[in-house]
Amino acid sequence: VKLLTLARDLRRRRARERHRLFVAEGVRTVDELLRSDLAVRGVLASPELAAASRAALEAAARVRGVTMTELDARDFASAADTDSPQGVLAIGEVPTRELSDLALPATARLVVLDAVQDPGNVGTILRTSAALGASATLALPGTVDLWNAKVVRSAMGALFHRPALSSTWDELDTFLVKTGTELWGADAAGEAVDRSRGSRPARLALAVGNEGAGLSADATTRARRLVGLPIASEIESLNVAVATGILLYELRP
Amino acid sequence: VKLLTLARDLRRRRARERHRLFVAEGVRTVDELLRSDLAVRGVLASPELAAASRAALEAAARVRGVTMTELDARDFASAADTDSPQGVLAIGEVPTRELSDLALPATARLVVLDAVQDPGNVGTILRTSAALGASATLALPGTVDLWNAKVVRSAMGALFHRPALSSTWDELDTFLVKTGTELWGADAAGEAVDRSRGSRPARLALAVGNEGAGLSADATTRARRLVGLPIASEIESLNVAVATGILLYELRP
Repeated sequence: VKLLTLARDLRRRRARERHRLFVAEGVRTVDELLRSDLAVRGVLASPELAAASRAALEAAARVRGVTMTELDARDFASAADTDSPQGVLAIGEVPTRELSDLALPATARLVVLDAVQDPGNVGTILRTSAALGASATLALPGTVDLWNAKVVRSAMGALFHRPALSSTWDELDTFLVKTGTELWGADAAGEAVDRSRGSRPARLALAVGNEGAGLSADATTRARRLVGLPIASEIESLNVAVATGILLYELRP
Repeated sequence: VKLLTLARDLRRRRARERHRLFVAEGVRTVDELLRSDLAVRGVLASPELAAASRAALEAAARVRGVTMTELDARDFASAADTDSPQGVLAIGEVPTRELSDLALPATARLVVLDAVQDPGNVGTILRTSAALGASATLALPGTVDLWNAKVVRSAMGALFHRPALSSTWDELDTFLVKTGTELWGADAAGEAVDRSRGSRPARLALAVGNEGAGLSADATTRARRLVGLPIASEIESLNVAVATGILLYELRP
């Protein structure tokens, strides 16, 4: 019951920040969490959890010394964020990571979320950044909470394997100088990137902006270059996660 | 009331196919539809529609000779697919397009959806394909209905500006031969694409597969080449819309 109360509470961002805990929902995400290095407080299951998945998750939880608690369908639903969470969720500890402690390899890519607001987009960007080898993803003010249940789900485990942390612009400024990392911004009006032309800095942070408003003044002022992707005139924009993927791939070391 | 009954009915795929009609929900999507060449049967609004949006949409509807009908909140909700549809939806006619009539420029890109099932992914692929200059998007068997309300919304108008149509494998085979278009498949195990190396056919159709299962046997058998994107080992895959965007950009003429 204590875990149930906690899971319900963790639907609010403020509770997640106070407890430094988050909720992972669904078979796939809970499985990824149990296989990661992150600490897990407990797993909650409902009768809706399919038998095969239950057996696999129970085994994975046992290996980690984590208890799986059974709830009835109504109690479970009161804690779940999604309408169809597959009958399982886990409570995990947000890793304590400070930007100042982040070690970068000699050649590195970072993704900077500049007030990206849709949880599905942020989750997909986390997944894409990890897949394409970015060292970390940083969430600047105005960005949706990285540990929101929908972000966690959309990230498909990426959040458990690669550093993702919140940062202020001041902290980012200090970090960029200290590590010799150049900040570029993704902007529809930026110069078209083309892998075959132009050199890239060894350490590059790419800032991507809000779904409607684009990059903030904070980002455009600081960016050494603005890069974009030429698109057909009748289409207003690319989805921010798609644009991030293309740019990261084009700007890979 | 007749439009209301119709809108409710159009939540089912079979009704959309029988009537050759679809529903566009939300201010942005209705506005894009009214500005497109597609025929519009009517617009339904509820008291939740914001005043500024209402005025703009009324003006756009008037230009098209389309009537805007007021409904109370409950009736409106009974027709809307989304929980928060911003108080406006429109009924549009599915354009009658046959693959055999599709004219391609000398250099062309096509996207082939091979059992892609998530409506948000399909909508984002339609938006991405249009933005990156693909001539058309084809939905093969097993793919979610292109005129599903969530696909329409996620496509952000792309569905109204560029050809998007369903096709069988037989129809596609005939079309590829007739137009001299080469079929390639996106596959995690495919050769890494790199724009700076290798030539591309003038007319290229890129098949992308199901979110879980990947390309079907129908697609892999037919594909002249399988291309992929190298990703970090701890991440299972890229989101299909992101992967489509990167591959289309890399394979641009």
